[in-house]
Amino acid sequence: MRKLLLLSTSVLQNGKYLEYASDVIKSFFAENGVSKIVFIPYAAHDHDAYERKVKDTFSEFGLELNSIHRSGNLLSTIKEAEGFFVGGGNTFLLLKTLYDLNLLEAIRDRVMQDGVPYMGSSAGTNLATVNICTTNDMPIVHPTSLDALGFLPFNINPHYLDPDPNSKHMGETRETRISEYHGIPNVRSPPVLGLREGSWLQVKDDKILLKGCIPNQCARLFIRGQIPKEHEVNSDLSFLLNM
Amino acid sequence: MRKLLLLSTSVLQNGKYLEYASDVIKSFFAENGVSKIVFIPYAAHDHDAYERKVKDTFSEFGLELNSIHRSGNLLSTIKEAEGFFVGGGNTFLLLKTLYDLNLLEAIRDRVMQDGVPYMGSSAGTNLATVNICTTNDMPIVHPTSLDALGFLPFNINPHYLDPDPNSKHMGETRETRISEYHGIPNVRSPPVLGLREGSWLQVKDDKILLKGCIPNQCARLFIRGQIPKEHEVNSDLSFLLNM
Ligand SMILES: [Ca+2]
Ligand SMILES: [Ca+2]
Repeated sequence: MRKLLLLSTSVLQNGKYLEYASDVIKSFFAENGVSKIVFIPYAAHDHDAYERKVKDTFSEFGLELNSIHRSGNLLSTIKEAEGFFVGGGNTFLLLKTLYDLNLLEAIRDRVMQDGVPYMGSSAGTNLATVNICTTNDMPIVHPTSLDALGFLPFNINPHYLDPDPNSKHMGETRETRISEYHGIPNVRSPPVLGLREGSWLQVKDDKILLKGCIPNQCARLFIRGQIPKEHEVNSDLSFLLNM
Repeated sequence: MRKLLLLSTSVLQNGKYLEYASDVIKSFFAENGVSKIVFIPYAAHDHDAYERKVKDTFSEFGLELNSIHRSGNLLSTIKEAEGFFVGGGNTFLLLKTLYDLNLLEAIRDRVMQDGVPYMGSSAGTNLATVNICTTNDMPIVHPTSLDALGFLPFNINPHYLDPDPNSKHMGETRETRISEYHGIPNVRSPPVLGLREGSWLQVKDDKILLKGCIPNQCARLFIRGQIPKEHEVNSDLSFLLNM
C-alpha cells in the first residue's frame, strides 16, 4: 500500500525551498486526495521555526501543513494523519527523537497498511528506507538502533556526490564509504541508491519510478559485489523490492 | 601521563602514506624510547592487508609494528604494548570492534596511567577524543555507544573542510554540522577542533601543541555559543583541557 515521494534534497542549487519539486509534490498529494499534512520536524532543533518555513511553502502549494510537535497526543495525530512530510536536517537526531517518542511503528502502519502518502526529503528520505547506515550526517546523538521505517528494503544515499578528480582532499569519497558498507564480512548489506540532488523516487505499491530534473545526473546504484550502475530519469527500479 | 600524536589524515594531497608526518612520527616514538608498536587495524575490514601497508611504512621509519589482530591474547598484547598506532578508515567500525572486543578500557589505562605513547590518524584521532560525534564517516555499523577513549575532553573533526563558496551542492557544510552538534538543547557539548589535513596535535600531559605543515590552513576551533576561531601552527591549545 506504500505511496512514497522521496527527494534527495529540499533545496536545489541555492533555489527556493522545495521549488524545483513543487509540481510533483502538488500532484503526489492531490492524486491521493490529501490536502492536510502532518509535518515531522525532528531532524532540526527549532521545531517552531522549521514549521513556519515549511507551512508557508506548503500553503503556496495549496496544502495545509501542521507540525506534530504541537499536538497534545502524538499517537492519535499519527493515527489520524492523511499525509506525512518528514523534512531534512540531521538524520541521527530525527531517528533518535522518533525512537524516544516511540512513534516509528505507528507511522509505519499508517503508511504500509493504511496507504497514507509519505513524502521525505534528505534525512526524511533516509528515514523511509531500511536503515540510516548511508546518511551523510554527523552522529551528533546516538539512536538506540540505526533501523528506520523500512518502507523500502534498500538504502539511499541522498545528496549523492561523484568523486571530484581535481580534489586533493583525502576524506573518503561516497563510493569508498558505500564500498565500506558493502565490505562488511558475512552480511548481506542491501543495495545503495546514490540519489543525486534534483532526483527523487515515486513509489506506488510495488512500482518504483526514478525521476529527476537534471538529465544524466540522476542516480548511481551500488549492489554488493557488482559494478556500480548509472540509472536515468524514468528508470523503473521496482526490481530493488525483490533483491 | 598522556603522550599523544593525533593526525588529521594519513595521506596528504595524494602523497605517500604518512610521508608528510614522517619526522614527527619518528621523534614522537624515539623521545619516548619506543621502537615496537602495536597497530590497531579495526577501522578497515582487511586487517592483514592494512598491517602489511603500515608495517612497511613504519619499518622505513626504523620502527617495528605488529597488528593486534594476530595476537592470541588481545588483552595481554595491550598490557605489554610500548606504543600504539590506530589507523584511519571507518570510525564506527573501529569503535564498535573495540567495544565488542572489550579493549577500550585496557588501552585507556595503558595510555593515561602508564604513559604509553598513542598515535592516531583520522578515525584513530577521533577515537582518542571524548566521543566520535564529529566523525565524517558513514554509520555502516552501530556501536553500543559513541563514547570513545576520552584522552581529551573535547571533539576533533578530522579532514576539516571550509565551506566552498562556489559549490552548488546543498549537503550541509562542516560548520553547519558542527553547529547542529552545538545546538542540542540543555547539553554542554564540548568544543570541536576542525583539524585541516596536514595538521596535528602533539600532547604531553597537560600541554597541547597544534602543529601543521601548511601555514594558515591549520585548525578552526568551535566553542559552543562563541564565534569560531582560527588557530595557527604552534598555537598552545592546553586551555581546552579545562573547559
Ligand atoms: Ca542532513
Ligand atoms: Ca574515515
